[in-house]
Amino acid sequence: MFGTYLDRVRSAAPLIHNMTNYVTANDVANLLLACGASPIMAEDENEAEEVTSICAGLNLNIGTLSRQKLRAMLLAGKEARRLGHPVLLDPVGVGVSRFRMEAAAQIVQEIRPDVIRGNGSEIRMLAAAGSAPARGVDADLADAVTEDQLAEAALRVKQQAEHMGCILAVTGRVDLITDGRTCYCISNGRPEMSRITGTGCQLSGLTTAFLAANPGQKLEAAAAAAAVMGLAGEIGWSRMQDGDGNAAYRNRIIDAVYHMDGKWLDEGEKVTVL
Amino acid sequence: MFGTYLDRVRSAAPLIHNMTNYVTANDVANLLLACGASPIMAEDENEAEEVTSICAGLNLNIGTLSRQKLRAMLLAGKEARRLGHPVLLDPVGVGVSRFRMEAAAQIVQEIRPDVIRGNGSEIRMLAAAGSAPARGVDADLADAVTEDQLAEAALRVKQQAEHMGCILAVTGRVDLITDGRTCYCISNGRPEMSRITGTGCQLSGLTTAFLAANPGQKLEAAAAAAAVMGLAGEIGWSRMQDGDGNAAYRNRIIDAVYHMDGKWLDEGEKVTVL
Amino acid sequence: MFGTYLDRVRSAAPLIHNMTNYVTANDVANLLLACGASPIMAEDENEAEEVTSICAGLNLNIGTLSRQKLRAMLLAGKEARRLGHPVLLDPVGVGVSRFRMEAAAQIVQEIRPDVIRGNGSEIRMLAAAGSAPARGVDADLADAVTEDQLAEAALRVKQQAEHMGCILAVTGRVDLITDGRTCYCISNGRPEMSRITGTGCQLSGLTTAFLAANPGQKLEAAAAAAAVMGLAGEIGWSRMQDGDGNAAYRNRIIDAVYHMDGKWLDEGEKVTVL
Repeated sequence: MFGTYLDRVRSAAPLIHNMTNYVTANDVANLLLACGASPIMAEDENEAEEVTSICAGLNLNIGTLSRQKLRAMLLAGKEARRLGHPVLLDPVGVGVSRFRMEAAAQIVQEIRPDVIRGNGSEIRMLAAAGSAPARGVDADLADAVTEDQLAEAALRVKQQAEHMGCILAVTGRVDLITDGRTCYCISNGRPEMSRITGTGCQLSGLTTAFLAANPGQKLEAAAAAAAVMGLAGEIGWSRMQDGDGNAAYRNRIIDAVYHMDGKWLDEGEKVTVL
Repeated sequence: MFGTYLDRVRSAAPLIHNMTNYVTANDVANLLLACGASPIMAEDENEAEEVTSICAGLNLNIGTLSRQKLRAMLLAGKEARRLGHPVLLDPVGVGVSRFRMEAAAQIVQEIRPDVIRGNGSEIRMLAAAGSAPARGVDADLADAVTEDQLAEAALRVKQQAEHMGCILAVTGRVDLITDGRTCYCISNGRPEMSRITGTGCQLSGLTTAFLAANPGQKLEAAAAAAAVMGLAGEIGWSRMQDGDGNAAYRNRIIDAVYHMDGKWLDEGEKVTVL
Repeated sequence: MFGTYLDRVRSAAPLIHNMTNYVTANDVANLLLACGASPIMAEDENEAEEVTSICAGLNLNIGTLSRQKLRAMLLAGKEARRLGHPVLLDPVGVGVSRFRMEAAAQIVQEIRPDVIRGNGSEIRMLAAAGSAPARGVDADLADAVTEDQLAEAALRVKQQAEHMGCILAVTGRVDLITDGRTCYCISNGRPEMSRITGTGCQLSGLTTAFLAANPGQKLEAAAAAAAVMGLAGEIGWSRMQDGDGNAAYRNRIIDAVYHMDGKWLDEGEKVTVL
C-alpha cells in the first residue's frame, strides 16, 4: 500500500528544512539521510526564508524554542506557503508553557501547516488551545489507544482535524492520521520506542520528507511515514542483542529505515482505514 | 545499599528540567529515560520558570552558556527553590573563562543548589572562586584520586562542602560525595569513561532524578546516582566487542543503566563511607 | 607517511576550541576524544576569546549560525591569530544563503584561516564568492572527483588555494589538500560516509587537532587528518554487521579512529602527491 511512497522519497531525495530543537537534531538529520532525503538545519532570521526557498519541505518543531527562533519560523513558514512547499508542525510539549502554546497557536493561525504531528495530549491541548498543562513532552498515558477504543479515537481525531483544518498525525500505540474524512490507523511500532528521546521529532522530519516527495497525496504520505517509523521500530527491536537498551535501539531504528524499501514496507505495514 | 534509591526513581518516574549545553543534551535525555525518569529541556526566559514548576527537579549546566540562558537559569532556579524542588549545578569547565566562573558563582549565591557536581578541578576552582584557569572541561589529572590518598581527599572535599554549604559530588577515579560530615566514596567506573563526551553531564542529569525521587535523603541519593553511573561504566565495558571505541561505549553505558535494577546495583556498588 | 602526525596528536593531546553547529557537535566532540585531543565548545561573546586563549586550535563552522555567534567567532578568530594558534574554517552549506556566504567571506577576510575545509561546491562557491546557490549542505554530485579527472581537479583546487591564500581541504570521492603548490590526493573513504550527518564537521575538528599538534607542517597535517577520516571510514565499514545502517556506521567510524595508531595509518593511507 505505502511502498511506492517510500520509493518516491528515495528517488526524489528531497532537501528538508528543519527548524527544530537541539536535543534531537542529530537523530532527525540521520533519519532523513536514512530514508534517502537530505536535511538542512537553519533557524536564524537572516537566512531562514532563503534556506526554505531552496528546500522542498519545512519541518517546524517547538522544542527548545526562543522568541527569535519563533520569528524565523514564521518568516520561513510564510515563504514555504508562498512557494507551495509542504509545512509540518510538531508541537513538542505544547502543554508545558504558555509560551509554547501561544507559539504553536500562532504558527497554526499564520502558517496553516499541512500536517500537525504530535502525541495525543499535545494534539488535544492544541485543538482545545488551553486547559490544564500536560505532563512534559511524553505522551499522556491516558491517550494510549487500544484496539478496542480505535473507532472512538478515530472519530475524535477526525473532529479535531476538521476543527483545525489540516491533517493530524496523532502518534501513540496506534497512530491515527486523518484529514477529517479518512483516518489511517497504523498499528506498527513498539512501546519501547517511547524510552528513546526524539522518535517523535524523527517522525516529524520523516513525514515532511514524505509530503515533499509525494505531492497531491498528503494524507497517504503522512500515513506512510508513520508506517515506516513504526515498522522500523519493529525491525530495530528484532535486531536487539542481549544487553542492548534505548541507546542501541535508537541506532537500530535509524538503521532499519536505512535498509527499508517499498516492498518491505508493503509487507510489514499494519494499516486499517476508518 | 543504594538499590532502593534506583527503584524509587523507576517508580516515581520524575520529570527533570535540564538547562544544559547542546553538545551532550541528547545523551542526557536518553540516560534519564534509561533510568526511568523523563527529560525536558527548556531554556528560554519565556518558559523556564513555568516549565520548572511542572517538573520534579532542575539540572543547571553551564556548558555553551549565554547571558540569556543564565538569566533563564536564575529565574528557573528561584522558582524551583520556592517550590522546594531539588536543584543541581554542574559547573562544566568553570575555569575556562571569567564568564563561566561568575555565572557559576552567581548561581551558587542566588540559588543555593542542593548539589554541585563536577570534577576535582572544577569544584576546587569554584570553592576557591578564582586562581589559575583549569585545563578545559576535562578533569585535571592532578585531581585523580588514588585509594591511598582517599582519606586526605575526602577530608578536603568535606571542608569544601562545609565552606560552600551544599552537597558536593566530585567525580574522578573515586567519586566523593559529601555534605561536609559524611563522605561516600564510590570506586565504581572505568578510566575509559573520560574518553566519552558528556558522561559528567549525564551523571548530573541522573543525580537530579535521584534527588527528585528520594526526597529527604539528598546525600545518599547523590551517592547512589554516582554508583549507578560507575557501575554502568563497568557493565558497558564488559559488553565491548572487538573494535568498539568511545562511540560504542557511550551507547553501552546508557544501555547498562536501562537494564539496571536495585538488586544489581546493590551487588555491584563499591562504596566506602568516611 | 602520515603515521607520525597522528602519533603527535595523541602525545600532544591538544585542547581544541570548536565554534560549531549544534546538529553534529556531539560527534565532533567524540571524534576529537577518539583521536586523543580534547574538545571544548563555547560560542558566547562573553567567553569566546578567553576560551580560545587557553586552547591550541580554533575550529569555526558556520552551520546553525547566528549574528551573535558570528561576532564571537570573529573575536575568537582574531585572538587565535594573535596567539599564533591554527584556525580552520568549515563553510558548511555556504551556498544556501547570503548570510552564510557573507559570514564565510568575512571570516576569510578578517581572520585569514590556515585551512578551509569543505566539499567541492562549498569551496568553489566561496572561492567565487557568488554564483547560483548550491544544493544544501551535501556535496554537489558534479564535484565528485574520479581518478581520471584527478590531475585536472588538483590543478583547479591549487588555483583556488593560491587565489584564497590558504590551504584548501576539499573532500569528496578523492580528498584534495593543497597550499597552491603541492596537492595531496587522498583516496581513502567510502561513498556511504555521505549518508551520515556530520562526517565533514568531524573531519574539520580532527584537522584542527592535527594542525595544533603538528606546528610548521600545516599542509601535511591537514592531509593526514583526511587520511585518518577516510581510513576510519573503511575500517568502520569493514566492521558493519548485517542490518547496520548509517547510525551504526557513524559510531563505527569514531571507534575506528579511537583504535588507530600511526603504524595502522601508514599501512592504510592511499596518498598521491601532485
